[in-house]
Amino acid sequence: MIEEKDLLEQIEAAIAALKYPRRATGLYRPVAYTLAGGGKRLRPMLVLMACEAVGGKVEGAVNQALAVEMFHNFTLIHDDVMDRSARRRGRPTVYRRWGDVQAILSGDALLTMAYMRLCDCAQGHEQQLLALFNRTALEVYEGQQLDTEFEHRDGVTVDEYIEMIRLKTSVLLGAACAMGAIMGGADEATVDAMYRYGEALGLAFQLRDDWLDVYGDPAVFGKNIGNDIITRKKTWLLIRATELAGDRIESAYQIQGVTGRVVAGVKAVYDSLGLSQECAALISKYALDAMNALPANLLDGYRERFVSLAIKLNDRSK
Amino acid sequence: MIEEKDLLEQIEAAIAALKYPRRATGLYRPVAYTLAGGGKRLRPMLVLMACEAVGGKVEGAVNQALAVEMFHNFTLIHDDVMDRSARRRGRPTVYRRWGDVQAILSGDALLTMAYMRLCDCAQGHEQQLLALFNRTALEVYEGQQLDTEFEHRDGVTVDEYIEMIRLKTSVLLGAACAMGAIMGGADEATVDAMYRYGEALGLAFQLRDDWLDVYGDPAVFGKNIGNDIITRKKTWLLIRATELAGDRIESAYQIQGVTGRVVAGVKAVYDSLGLSQECAALISKYALDAMNALPANLLDGYRERFVSLAIKLNDRSK
Repeated sequence: MIEEKDLLEQIEAAIAALKYPRRATGLYRPVAYTLAGGGKRLRPMLVLMACEAVGGKVEGAVNQALAVEMFHNFTLIHDDVMDRSARRRGRPTVYRRWGDVQAILSGDALLTMAYMRLCDCAQGHEQQLLALFNRTALEVYEGQQLDTEFEHRDGVTVDEYIEMIRLKTSVLLGAACAMGAIMGGADEATVDAMYRYGEALGLAFQLRDDWLDVYGDPAVFGKNIGNDIITRKKTWLLIRATELAGDRIESAYQIQGVTGRVVAGVKAVYDSLGLSQECAALISKYALDAMNALPANLLDGYRERFVSLAIKLNDRSK
Repeated sequence: MIEEKDLLEQIEAAIAALKYPRRATGLYRPVAYTLAGGGKRLRPMLVLMACEAVGGKVEGAVNQALAVEMFHNFTLIHDDVMDRSARRRGRPTVYRRWGDVQAILSGDALLTMAYMRLCDCAQGHEQQLLALFNRTALEVYEGQQLDTEFEHRDGVTVDEYIEMIRLKTSVLLGAACAMGAIMGGADEATVDAMYRYGEALGLAFQLRDDWLDVYGDPAVFGKNIGNDIITRKKTWLLIRATELAGDRIESAYQIQGVTGRVVAGVKAVYDSLGLSQECAALISKYALDAMNALPANLLDGYRERFVSLAIKLNDRSK
């Protein structure tokens, strides 16, 4: 079993070795900038780990790992334009640094580059990979569409929210696991099981993000606590609190003066409703769903690796 | 030989019959709006005509024709955001009607839908189609990148301009012809020849657009004459005139008062330099290049069809 740090090194090396066309180089500068920005590399790691876990050679799935990471970074570039986000991973976003035009165009290029990688060295698996990738891509856009619509709509339910984050975040983690399994030569049932693992993992992952914004340790979390509350972002916590005690949430948002008092007021409502515990229980449920979805026929030791990952992402403090 | 109006009808019918996912329907409304917007359907027509010309069945290339038309419309949606264009084909652009966020996201969806169509029913040709499509897509973005850069740069040469329009416009026409030939089962030499036909046709087509803006008949052209002059767009005419008599162009743009006088002043410089004739001669050269590129082994009558098309596009008045 290749150690995680060596897998990560392979991914970073493959990204660093990418060659860009020599023409219209301004198009590719934001692409290289974004890909070099790091992050957890969770999605390409899942591709390589899943490939190895079903008996495949990791080298054979590096292009598909890059494709998933490229797709993810393309969505970040475009999402940052749409959300007017100024910073990501401690640096200015592409649109802030190069403007809207460049961000739209470089994002488009990165999506096409993802397709190029996807089918590179995919002997015999092209059709299966493309069908999965295309379906997943449309679902991710649909998730982003619903996210945008929810911000302007009252009465969004917890179920609708879960379906939105499933589309926006989880399906890509599912697809990453499935693509790794496909490249490792797994049968359909194994591929499907790995997809469901990644999908459930993604739900736990996104809900933990929501939870950390309010209940994270400011010293560890790395972002300001309560940012979602201040921007009145429709997270699981806010939607659930609105379902249970909409009038009290409304009152908390009426507090005049420093934003800190609004954060404290909204958090007090969450606390009185026991939402920290309810959210944590839901995260654990999805982490367990992920573990239970794992196929029985993984190579020795790999089941434990995926179980550990689900526990780690579930318990993470940043 | 299927008549052109029947080919066009097949394309329109295939677009009208498109099914969209029932989820996040707001994502697909601008897609349907754009695809229904008509236009010449030149690119999908080229796919079907090339397929038939090499002995293939037109029905077998409809998905690829849709893919090319979808890709073209995706670029229009994103270009209109980038250029802040308010109207296209007599209607508000997507960004004007639904906003930037929707235009970016729906454009992304349309690009992915193009990939879905491309490989649908492409038995055995997927690799060749994908490689061509991906390369072409990057070239189109590179062309748009150069176009953007040229607007902020002095000293752009005629050669640079031709290379830019080759990338931005011509390669997609070349790819359309090549994809039709591939789906019709043509050999590599025939596919390449059809590509070169479309590529040269595209150069003639774009230069005719530049020419029509100044020398078109206002009653027929359908757009305001001189719009490129007013916006000081770097067309072939302006770049060539700046090469030959930059100071006189500069003086013409210094004229104060009504824009009509600037248009007349710049046009007078073009006329004194004989640029209408020089541009027309260049258009004819590319139209002839296109005809000469046509492969010798097309089915009876098809060579004439492609020759007629080159003549028609060359001589068009709108």
